[in-house]
Amino acid sequence: MADPRDPAPLRTYSYLGPRGTFTEAALAQVPEAQGQNWRSVNNVGEALGDVIAGRSDGAVIAIENSIEGGVSVAQDALATMPGLRIVGEYLVPVNFVLVARRGTKLEDVKVVNAHPVAYAQCHSWMDATLPDHGHIPATSNVAAASALFETELADAAIAPPRIVDSYDVDVLAEAIGDNPNAVTRFLHVSRTTDIPPATGADKTSLVAELPIDRAGALLELLQQFSTRGVNMSLIESRPIGDELGRYRFIIDADGHISDERVADALLGVRRFSPGVMFLGSYPRADKSPIEFDPKYSDDVFVEARQWLGSLLAGSPDAAVPLPPSAG
Amino acid sequence: MADPRDPAPLRTYSYLGPRGTFTEAALAQVPEAQGQNWRSVNNVGEALGDVIAGRSDGAVIAIENSIEGGVSVAQDALATMPGLRIVGEYLVPVNFVLVARRGTKLEDVKVVNAHPVAYAQCHSWMDATLPDHGHIPATSNVAAASALFETELADAAIAPPRIVDSYDVDVLAEAIGDNPNAVTRFLHVSRTTDIPPATGADKTSLVAELPIDRAGALLELLQQFSTRGVNMSLIESRPIGDELGRYRFIIDADGHISDERVADALLGVRRFSPGVMFLGSYPRADKSPIEFDPKYSDDVFVEARQWLGSLLAGSPDAAVPLPPSAG
Amino acid sequence: MADPRDPAPLRTYSYLGPRGTFTEAALAQVPEAQGQNWRSVNNVGEALGDVIAGRSDGAVIAIENSIEGGVSVAQDALATMPGLRIVGEYLVPVNFVLVARRGTKLEDVKVVNAHPVAYAQCHSWMDATLPDHGHIPATSNVAAASALFETELADAAIAPPRIVDSYDVDVLAEAIGDNPNAVTRFLHVSRTTDIPPATGADKTSLVAELPIDRAGALLELLQQFSTRGVNMSLIESRPIGDELGRYRFIIDADGHISDERVADALLGVRRFSPGVMFLGSYPRADKSPIEFDPKYSDDVFVEARQWLGSLLAGSPDAAVPLPPSAG
Amino acid sequence: MADPRDPAPLRTYSYLGPRGTFTEAALAQVPEAQGQNWRSVNNVGEALGDVIAGRSDGAVIAIENSIEGGVSVAQDALATMPGLRIVGEYLVPVNFVLVARRGTKLEDVKVVNAHPVAYAQCHSWMDATLPDHGHIPATSNVAAASALFETELADAAIAPPRIVDSYDVDVLAEAIGDNPNAVTRFLHVSRTTDIPPATGADKTSLVAELPIDRAGALLELLQQFSTRGVNMSLIESRPIGDELGRYRFIIDADGHISDERVADALLGVRRFSPGVMFLGSYPRADKSPIEFDPKYSDDVFVEARQWLGSLLAGSPDAAVPLPPSAG
Repeated sequence: MADPRDPAPLRTYSYLGPRGTFTEAALAQVPEAQGQNWRSVNNVGEALGDVIAGRSDGAVIAIENSIEGGVSVAQDALATMPGLRIVGEYLVPVNFVLVARRGTKLEDVKVVNAHPVAYAQCHSWMDATLPDHGHIPATSNVAAASALFETELADAAIAPPRIVDSYDVDVLAEAIGDNPNAVTRFLHVSRTTDIPPATGADKTSLVAELPIDRAGALLELLQQFSTRGVNMSLIESRPIGDELGRYRFIIDADGHISDERVADALLGVRRFSPGVMFLGSYPRADKSPIEFDPKYSDDVFVEARQWLGSLLAGSPDAAVPLPPSAG
Repeated sequence: MADPRDPAPLRTYSYLGPRGTFTEAALAQVPEAQGQNWRSVNNVGEALGDVIAGRSDGAVIAIENSIEGGVSVAQDALATMPGLRIVGEYLVPVNFVLVARRGTKLEDVKVVNAHPVAYAQCHSWMDATLPDHGHIPATSNVAAASALFETELADAAIAPPRIVDSYDVDVLAEAIGDNPNAVTRFLHVSRTTDIPPATGADKTSLVAELPIDRAGALLELLQQFSTRGVNMSLIESRPIGDELGRYRFIIDADGHISDERVADALLGVRRFSPGVMFLGSYPRADKSPIEFDPKYSDDVFVEARQWLGSLLAGSPDAAVPLPPSAG
Repeated sequence: MADPRDPAPLRTYSYLGPRGTFTEAALAQVPEAQGQNWRSVNNVGEALGDVIAGRSDGAVIAIENSIEGGVSVAQDALATMPGLRIVGEYLVPVNFVLVARRGTKLEDVKVVNAHPVAYAQCHSWMDATLPDHGHIPATSNVAAASALFETELADAAIAPPRIVDSYDVDVLAEAIGDNPNAVTRFLHVSRTTDIPPATGADKTSLVAELPIDRAGALLELLQQFSTRGVNMSLIESRPIGDELGRYRFIIDADGHISDERVADALLGVRRFSPGVMFLGSYPRADKSPIEFDPKYSDDVFVEARQWLGSLLAGSPDAAVPLPPSAG
Repeated sequence: MADPRDPAPLRTYSYLGPRGTFTEAALAQVPEAQGQNWRSVNNVGEALGDVIAGRSDGAVIAIENSIEGGVSVAQDALATMPGLRIVGEYLVPVNFVLVARRGTKLEDVKVVNAHPVAYAQCHSWMDATLPDHGHIPATSNVAAASALFETELADAAIAPPRIVDSYDVDVLAEAIGDNPNAVTRFLHVSRTTDIPPATGADKTSLVAELPIDRAGALLELLQQFSTRGVNMSLIESRPIGDELGRYRFIIDADGHISDERVADALLGVRRFSPGVMFLGSYPRADKSPIEFDPKYSDDVFVEARQWLGSLLAGSPDAAVPLPPSAG
């Protein structure tokens, strides 16, 4: 029998590790993960698998980078692994440092170990500063740095700034990313099906397939949102995978499923699409309140339903055409 | 105290009379009006006023002619007189005879009495047969004939075929209308607020104002129907009357208010339009079943609502993207 | 041989007469008609027939009333009589006076002669002031007044204010119309095919049939305008006349056929519609300049054509994506 | 002076090498590249840079995989490097073999060298057959194989079937890809600005930015195609890179720039989008003729232009509304 004085067991959160990654920086922003178990895994699939299998209570995964675009593997995992729900999003500024074993000088760097994505984002700086360098690809930003201590194949590594907390390295250069405003968006994913309450600054994510590959099908899908005054902050196509030319769409819509206009748009999408998956409604990372035309506010939806209900119940139409002066 | 053996009191139906009009021919098609009181009135306003005031249980009014178009005065009356409900529609073939006092010969006809609309519809025949005739306007088709017995200003009258039941006239020519397929559509209007049950071959009429006089407002109104797969058999603009350029629209949509797709379109119109009036759902005169895309069938709407409800209740998404082979 | 000193022959303008009608008031506004022959005719068909046959250089016809709506017979005539072109529009405030033979007192009026439309527009005043009056329909507003001197059937007539210039009548009451802002819109129609030059405050009129009676066809027609940023000030359906449910649409669009966006919309309509008729581009009566989104200005169209032309001619794309800072 | 008997100098084509890659298999399909110089390069940027600098006459690059989706780096390069033009597309079935140094047995494989994308596509087979294997990432599919002869870190490599032409390896397993229908689409890119002639089975590629991040902008972009009956076989969003939430769209439209409907859609996109880049019109790899509604055929566009031209030149409208019987 459990002793009521026992502390609650710790929750576990999976993230792309090891310590020092941008994903860990995102996890550090998740309020409910503070002081809990952080479980370092090797890839997105493993992180989400942990959640589905119950090994973890949540996972933090990168979903989009302001320069590289959507993270396909994460998008595809969310679109095909049932039982997951997005419950939060977080932004992490993405910048890089060039690190090396203690004592290395910048001018001695011949070969650089770097994850291909990080490498691409530091392309201009690398070409300008080390025009003759070679590149060894790493499986992650942290692996690039840790490899410095495993082999001598590389002289330096491109790594996130937090790397200095984990490795005894010299920082040869800071802020070497080509775009100082680069940012990566992360999602907090759980298997909870309780939807976080609406905050007024929410986002709703879903996946929808087009009914057939015909002219206008995408247009019709988008109209499900536009006719309800719902803006989309993201729409990305991903191959369904069976043949070229068949896509599903990942959509982030402004607003919460409990907003009438969003709920009505979801109904429209559900009726229209042969395959739709609700991924979650959750607070936006930027906490910026959703703006929308007042004609799509909740009370307008409620009033319309009451009107329809009263007609069906046999009441006469209240019949209030605009007075001429109100034109 | 009422004697239960008393027969039910007769119901009263107002129509544009007198006997012999096309409107009377329409009234003769209304099943519930058979064997009841038929009240002949002078114009549409009077007929609808009878219904509102309770002097009549129903009114039959002409609403559209296949050649002349919408009957503006009837459309405007429906759009502005609250408390009315369309409960049926009926079609009457429109053709005309030329009648005269007994003994008149066709070649002696110099002046013809005719309602302007009837006159216009017989224009070709009149010009070919009686190129030098004069025209005296009448207030109705029957009044044109009756005037033959009041003054001698006219030698003949254009009248509906049924006129021979009421007046002792010679028929000088039959089927003189220019279009042998001409037909007029009539509405049965009551103040009953119980909506006739759906038959599968129904029509829904409404009036809607545009929110503002801006590019695209009409388009947005029409999309409320098209995005639910609801066809419109009629759309007519009528001036609101306060200034040039401000219109309301009379719309006949295929289907019944109890059809999910029609109800959803009505909700959309209600939210969009500053002034909307439901005029009724009722069986089509031609009894032709409504055809629609199965993706707008009732069960699709019900399923979508159940899906949304289950998400809001905290269930996981059933998540059934199309299997690749089903594409 | 013509003597060059001879004055130019006078031009002739047909209008719904006789003197004193609102149509004459409209004709009085047409600059090019001043000092020319004004030909009084009996109806719209006659006026337009004069133009087609060359008996007149122009005709002025009523096309729309702010209260009664479109003048169907005029709309249908324009839609079916080839060889006509609208070259101007004019607005005439519509108000009415009650006139009678000299010496008649208001309280003695029992029967009123009035054109049905005028009668309808004075309905409230008549019911309040002369609750027991009878009505005799007239073929025109002026005929109502002139009839006072032909028979004694009526005691008074509803007429336009200008009637006092033509008839020796007493004005029993002024401004008896129910809506003091009522206005009628008139068109100046010629067979001239030179299009009046653009003024920046122009209107383009056309007639278009829908390709088939299917859901969405009207929507597609309207999109031909909206996708080019062209606003419509009028859209009216008129029966084609062959059967119920088949319509053509009369459209007034903002702008001139020589405006790129209007020309492009006309091209779209021509491609879409099985029957389209250009009725004319002409200055708006209210001289109010057309406002439109700068992205639909002429230079944008010209630039796009140049771009396409250069691509087809084998030039590389200038390729100027937005600089990030311009986002 | 050149000796006219000299053979024409060979043309050069850059591709992602070395020999044995899928890209080389695509290049082997390009008719004009047969018997010419094939230049193996290390990445897409280098291949396209060769073309721009004139070191190569053409480049073949992978643009989309039926499983992994769009190749972001190639899409971004095309969207931002001016002076390139797509002149052809080619499809290569994607399957993989597992290869090893001579004498290796499947059961001895502990560590596998593989490009991450190839590795992902063989995930199921690897997990089922070699549940305990480790993975070393390679920079390309061929590099994975060649590494077998450079280090002994890996026991086997995932490689394209053509690898056996270049390396002395044992094939331990064939067709290990999870999806037997996987295919990669390649583009032939040159700096020629002469557009390949239309074949009736063509594709037009372009890049377009949305004017502002507002509701409906994407919808408006898509309508530029749908209102001209032009189907899109691909639409992908790519970040512009300056901040989260700003995208450009890569679009493949059915048809050729010399097709009237495609040209008209391009004009619409050019007017609408603040940044548009034409990437080329070229024959589809599948040679499947484009189907389109006859109302968007070239002659309809030509006829509409002639009609507009005749109106502007002062001709009367031919005015051919549908005869009633044609409805």
